[in-house]
Amino acid sequence: MQGKSLKELAEHVGGEVRGDGQMVIKAVSTLDKAGAGEITFLSNKKYESLLKTTKASAVIVAKPAETDAALLIAEDPYYALMQIVVLLHGHRKHKKVGVSERSSVAKTAKFGANCNVYDFAVISENARIGKNCCIYPGAFIGPDVKMGDDCIVYANAVIYNGCEIGSRVIIHANAVIGEDGYGFATHKGKHYKIPQIGRVVLEDDVEIGACCTIERATLGNTIIGKGTKVGDMVAIGHGANIGPHCLLVPQVGISGSATLGHHCVLAGQVGVVGHIKIGNMVTIGAQSGVGHDIPDGATVLGTPAIEANKTKRVYASIQHLPEMRKSIRELEKRLADLEKAGE
Amino acid sequence: MQGKSLKELAEHVGGEVRGDGQMVIKAVSTLDKAGAGEITFLSNKKYESLLKTTKASAVIVAKPAETDAALLIAEDPYYALMQIVVLLHGHRKHKKVGVSERSSVAKTAKFGANCNVYDFAVISENARIGKNCCIYPGAFIGPDVKMGDDCIVYANAVIYNGCEIGSRVIIHANAVIGEDGYGFATHKGKHYKIPQIGRVVLEDDVEIGACCTIERATLGNTIIGKGTKVGDMVAIGHGANIGPHCLLVPQVGISGSATLGHHCVLAGQVGVVGHIKIGNMVTIGAQSGVGHDIPDGATVLGTPAIEANKTKRVYASIQHLPEMRKSIRELEKRLADLEKAGE
Amino acid sequence: MQGKSLKELAEHVGGEVRGDGQMVIKAVSTLDKAGAGEITFLSNKKYESLLKTTKASAVIVAKPAETDAALLIAEDPYYALMQIVVLLHGHRKHKKVGVSERSSVAKTAKFGANCNVYDFAVISENARIGKNCCIYPGAFIGPDVKMGDDCIVYANAVIYNGCEIGSRVIIHANAVIGEDGYGFATHKGKHYKIPQIGRVVLEDDVEIGACCTIERATLGNTIIGKGTKVGDMVAIGHGANIGPHCLLVPQVGISGSATLGHHCVLAGQVGVVGHIKIGNMVTIGAQSGVGHDIPDGATVLGTPAIEANKTKRVYASIQHLPEMRKSIRELEKRLADLEKAGE
Repeated sequence: MQGKSLKELAEHVGGEVRGDGQMVIKAVSTLDKAGAGEITFLSNKKYESLLKTTKASAVIVAKPAETDAALLIAEDPYYALMQIVVLLHGHRKHKKVGVSERSSVAKTAKFGANCNVYDFAVISENARIGKNCCIYPGAFIGPDVKMGDDCIVYANAVIYNGCEIGSRVIIHANAVIGEDGYGFATHKGKHYKIPQIGRVVLEDDVEIGACCTIERATLGNTIIGKGTKVGDMVAIGHGANIGPHCLLVPQVGISGSATLGHHCVLAGQVGVVGHIKIGNMVTIGAQSGVGHDIPDGATVLGTPAIEANKTKRVYASIQHLPEMRKSIRELEKRLADLEKAGE
Repeated sequence: MQGKSLKELAEHVGGEVRGDGQMVIKAVSTLDKAGAGEITFLSNKKYESLLKTTKASAVIVAKPAETDAALLIAEDPYYALMQIVVLLHGHRKHKKVGVSERSSVAKTAKFGANCNVYDFAVISENARIGKNCCIYPGAFIGPDVKMGDDCIVYANAVIYNGCEIGSRVIIHANAVIGEDGYGFATHKGKHYKIPQIGRVVLEDDVEIGACCTIERATLGNTIIGKGTKVGDMVAIGHGANIGPHCLLVPQVGISGSATLGHHCVLAGQVGVVGHIKIGNMVTIGAQSGVGHDIPDGATVLGTPAIEANKTKRVYASIQHLPEMRKSIRELEKRLADLEKAGE
Repeated sequence: MQGKSLKELAEHVGGEVRGDGQMVIKAVSTLDKAGAGEITFLSNKKYESLLKTTKASAVIVAKPAETDAALLIAEDPYYALMQIVVLLHGHRKHKKVGVSERSSVAKTAKFGANCNVYDFAVISENARIGKNCCIYPGAFIGPDVKMGDDCIVYANAVIYNGCEIGSRVIIHANAVIGEDGYGFATHKGKHYKIPQIGRVVLEDDVEIGACCTIERATLGNTIIGKGTKVGDMVAIGHGANIGPHCLLVPQVGISGSATLGHHCVLAGQVGVVGHIKIGNMVTIGAQSGVGHDIPDGATVLGTPAIEANKTKRVYASIQHLPEMRKSIRELEKRLADLEKAGE
């Protein structure tokens, strides 16, 4: 690793140096672990005190701060961090293997140029894969799947038949795309499987975390919009329509036919019931249970999810519930005494 | 796809035609996407207004409705939908490959007729597989597993040693059946693994969603009863006994040794603690936390889960908690004033 | 199976026999299923009544009890059970296959003695695997992974590049170790992937459940401490640091950069937000949502998680919330009447 001068890094991110711009930075590390030749960052105030003790040569910050390290002042330190990690370390490299003889590729499958299909990966009949895709060992690409360019499907991920994957999509290990929707017609006490003849569409630049499950639609499509990033272990129900540029954090569950607008953020373990409509730019706090439509721009929290500030006040009060109950009983008694006295 | 006349469809489901029974229906689609030659359905009132705008040729409904489409009136539109999707589209077809040379089948494993074992699937020693089963790529069938007829094990699903699978069982991709139960004996600060010598039994007609984890019992069996349908990402603890014909929706968690009766419905993200007994025909609302026995026929909701209507009233009140606290304080003050005045 | 005399078992666990110490015990079973020649145990009071009806030849108990079976009295029956199951049944046996020709092992990978690498397992470039390890079918060991001795990686589990695994670590099927942390820098409405250049460290004697997802750190390490046991479907965020000898029960979620001390117990479906510090020996009740630091030794419950006994009282009161609201309104009315009367 050759490194870059701090000045070069600052120019790369449109930031400003305070200190020795000629120092060479070779790697990025954390505030507490960084050493000489390394740059670190501060974006969470919680770690501000570490500025005084860090051994890093430089720190990316939003504004001047007290530290022995040189400063790289950037408007958005976290975004600058991203740019610098990409510059100095880059994204994961994938071994060039072409199409391994130990993979299983159907004769009717087609690929663009420069794909890597690793050992024991399976590409089924009539799959159409764009160029520069990496299909890791054990990944299963079902029949009639369409995939754009520059996609990565990590080990043992599974894409069922007929799903459509955009370009620059990343699917992490053991994720499942397009399994049957949970659709059963109950008749006289038995549950009859409804063939799920729809599919899943992952638009461009989507990332799907490890062990996610994205159900195919009963009819039509389950859609994950362009640029949406889905954390690990997120379950999405059949026919759900997730808008573009959303962030769904790990362990979120979205029920069937729910729709989300663009730029929504759902924190960990949130549950969304089926057939409801969540607007654009909605933020939903961790573990919330959303049971009804949410308007554009709202920030909600709790089960049932209501305006987040209201829920925070509820959270602050709820431990007093038992004493409140006691107080009410006492008030009733005292009031009855007064009423009696006044008769 | 050849299609059927609307009259034929109505006869198939025991329904009644309003409109042109001779029209040919080739496919099933949604109210908003369906076009000419397609049938759709209304079973959720929420979508009733779409009847006026649908371009479908016909709609399955429970009772006469205002729409330009022809009507197929059926007692249970969702059940009729299932029958028609099966008739017009059918269930997923599986490529006939027999036992692939690129699979790994132990010499001591035995199969019934007409099984498909795809590339890179593994069938271990002494496994017994019935007829007409499909074992998808990367699926792992452990030693001594017994499986009935007409089962489908999708890609990369894993069945540990000794588990017993009934007939017509469907196991979706990346599900795990029979991993070790979470059983440790803690002694002087260390956790010692208790060998989990029990197993998992999936009875006939069970469906297991993608990325489910069904722990084997410490001793005895973890059982999923006949006809029970388990959604994606459901975790079932060791020794749990789930009755027949239950519906466990995605992300449900059932702790060890809990028992459920027949025809229970558990909505998304429900958690059930260990060693409790949930009766027959119990319905548990989304995200509920169930910590004690539940009697037959109950509908419960919330954490802790109580009678659902009670919880709904709690949900409606809870946002008023902070103002209630304030009201109590004011009442106390006013009452003290009155008491003082009366002295 | 040859069996042991009850006396031998008692000596093995440091316990005491009441009854015929010469009887031969061949297997361990449950109170309700055990028969002649089998031993069972009582550690959960809930099942005490089964002592009267059990057909077991012997029962492990903490103190004398009424039953027809012989007794093995042990200080910690559950720990004694573990010792006896190990003695009579042992841990899972793994078929000796050496390195299968149908696995995929990079030329630059290195192994210690006596490893089993099964069909379709993948060991990537520069991986270093200790001795006596079992790598099950379809498991993927990424480039530069280091693994100690006596590890078991079950079918289709995935370990991304560069992670470090201690000795005697067990990773269950379809678990994922070291997938990219959920780290995106949002800039002008787009989410840019931050290369996750850290890794995951699983220390000695860790067990990871099926379908777990343990994110690699952005920078530095995500750490699971020595002897910690992680249940199925647990999601751990990037940079989290879980102390030694913790128990994380299924479906727990720990957000990025959270730290846990030693000997913490997190029950099912608990969620922990990022960047907080949970002390040593903390117990967190099922479904709790932990949003702030927790001191050593605390037992917390609820969302937000507070002292467990407080939450239990809240849980007992919460169903009365609607009637409390009604009572307050009535009190206000009655008080206003009194106030008016007193004017």
